[in-house]
Amino acid sequence: MSTPGAGARLSDLPLREDLRGRSPYGAPQLDVPHQLNTNENPYPPPPELVADIAEAAREIAATLHRYPDRDAVALRTDLAAYLSGATGLGLGAANLWAANGSNEVLQQILQAFGGPGRSALGFEPSYSMHPIIAAGTRTEWAPTPRRADFSLDVDAAVAELARRKPDVVFVTSPNNPTGQSIPLEDLRALVTAAPGIVVVDEAYAEFSPQRSAVHLIDEFPTQVIVSRTMSKAFAFAGGRLGYLAAAPAVVDALLLVRLPYHLSSLTQAAARAALRHAEGTLASVHRLAGERDRVVEALRGLGARVVPSDANFVLFGHFADPAATWQSYLDRGVLIRDVGIPGHLRATIGTPEENDAFLAATKEVVQ
Amino acid sequence: MSTPGAGARLSDLPLREDLRGRSPYGAPQLDVPHQLNTNENPYPPPPELVADIAEAAREIAATLHRYPDRDAVALRTDLAAYLSGATGLGLGAANLWAANGSNEVLQQILQAFGGPGRSALGFEPSYSMHPIIAAGTRTEWAPTPRRADFSLDVDAAVAELARRKPDVVFVTSPNNPTGQSIPLEDLRALVTAAPGIVVVDEAYAEFSPQRSAVHLIDEFPTQVIVSRTMSKAFAFAGGRLGYLAAAPAVVDALLLVRLPYHLSSLTQAAARAALRHAEGTLASVHRLAGERDRVVEALRGLGARVVPSDANFVLFGHFADPAATWQSYLDRGVLIRDVGIPGHLRATIGTPEENDAFLAATKEVVQ
Repeated sequence: MSTPGAGARLSDLPLREDLRGRSPYGAPQLDVPHQLNTNENPYPPPPELVADIAEAAREIAATLHRYPDRDAVALRTDLAAYLSGATGLGLGAANLWAANGSNEVLQQILQAFGGPGRSALGFEPSYSMHPIIAAGTRTEWAPTPRRADFSLDVDAAVAELARRKPDVVFVTSPNNPTGQSIPLEDLRALVTAAPGIVVVDEAYAEFSPQRSAVHLIDEFPTQVIVSRTMSKAFAFAGGRLGYLAAAPAVVDALLLVRLPYHLSSLTQAAARAALRHAEGTLASVHRLAGERDRVVEALRGLGARVVPSDANFVLFGHFADPAATWQSYLDRGVLIRDVGIPGHLRATIGTPEENDAFLAATKEVVQ
Repeated sequence: MSTPGAGARLSDLPLREDLRGRSPYGAPQLDVPHQLNTNENPYPPPPELVADIAEAAREIAATLHRYPDRDAVALRTDLAAYLSGATGLGLGAANLWAANGSNEVLQQILQAFGGPGRSALGFEPSYSMHPIIAAGTRTEWAPTPRRADFSLDVDAAVAELARRKPDVVFVTSPNNPTGQSIPLEDLRALVTAAPGIVVVDEAYAEFSPQRSAVHLIDEFPTQVIVSRTMSKAFAFAGGRLGYLAAAPAVVDALLLVRLPYHLSSLTQAAARAALRHAEGTLASVHRLAGERDRVVEALRGLGARVVPSDANFVLFGHFADPAATWQSYLDRGVLIRDVGIPGHLRATIGTPEENDAFLAATKEVVQ
């Protein structure tokens, strides 16, 4: 039997005009020896966490005929406890919100505070999903350049916020794909200058020595939203758990736009299991930060220019033809990322063995 | 320590104007003896399925540091096999798409084919999330009334589609919260009259004797999208797995708007486990249909007016004060649903014991 409807093409469909000619987002998912392209934590969940997740799944599976807790209160309570421990603040479940990856968190934020007739500003290059989610929610995107060395010129940024008055500002710290963090005092200056919501995207916060923007919530409760993820430091990318911390009123706003029952019982249970093992998992953060510093030194020793990084990846160059260089790495079994920044490539910090393979490939590639 | 930002109120936030004053969607989640309010399947997953899900979770947990398959190909292949078996058609993975509940599927459809400047039409009363998701994607909502007995006047509907030319049409069959199915020939007439996309929401299809709109995909590949869910017949509400069948080009369109990695590895693995046990789970469909017919007869015997139902719930009345009657049921430990239709309430078909409790409560309530 032939595939029903296979004769129709995408161009035959009544697709929105602004989507025509676009390509789906996504890094290649290739089966190669060294996957250093999506900033995953290279250390798999330890056996005791695997067993805990399996047991949590067994318990919850017996109730899967019922809808999940729509507001995920137990999970949000656990996330609040984790973040309170990490910051010394007294966050409660009312400060936390969770969704299927921080992408969904960010989409909900723009559904509530962005959308048609409103604008969102980001300092580029930064996380490439920000403008994509803005487009998906029909929020006007206002890109603003960073310095040539990818650091943020805070004075220029403050002036730009005053001039353009965006409804939502994205500040990524540490910034992806460049790696630099933004000090808390600079964040405070940005929030003070911003007329509305400031989303501080802290997907890589655990790898950075800077203080979290969570410390600004009480001072700017109607403005500051801190988005986080369990995909990176928590080694939980496959579990899809993004979250945010903000004033309780912000969470109330998101309840108006979230799809009911968006977070499955399994996701809630597995994420809670992962949080119970936070101490063990987060031990890898220190190892990865040490490896990052080693890789940066080695890359510089090989003549590369490396952007300072507070995250679990490094942006480096300079390459005349990054796409060709990316392929040269791949030919050596090392998958890194061409993030579209002229002259540069991004590599995730892996295990010591993976980093050695990456450095060995670099030695060959730069010759 | 006090909760950070607790002093700010929702009205202090720069919320979108169209969201101001709204309340979050959702039926009450109450812990009562008989939960007959959200059309769940009352039969919990059997021990062999629970074990299979736990084992699948154990296997996948060891890889949770990696992102999931972004395109969920294995799951979509399994869904295609299930739907091909159910319809006798030769559907492939290219015809299938999946997301976190059919709500997310519907949201993606409106992101691709609806949105600002476009309209979506539905025949009301119907699934209350359709207009909410339209609002969330800023798609103009064009409600069109059903007959007074909640059946669809197909001739009037065809005329309305020709007159209003909506970009997207929602047809729910069996209709929630009323219960009636729409025959395939009537669906064909509606699609022929519609200028664009027709979403046939078949969340309750397994309970209906009518043929699925999947049979129309090959005839109308640029128009017909059939949305489905594992929440009802599959007893997988807590697993959050909605899906759709359509021409492959429709799936290509959704790839442009889906958030990358929207479906966790755990969700994909657990849903595949549930599909392996489809035969056993779907045996409950026949039991529930039999119970539904028994409940309908008994309600009529008690003097209630019952809308004919092809689903796992019944809409019935007539009550002068449905909210007060709803409370009377709740006082007797029976949680049903006030869906906002004057004079009516909706009750999910449960186990024979639950249905007996519901009927006993009805006897008291109607006196």
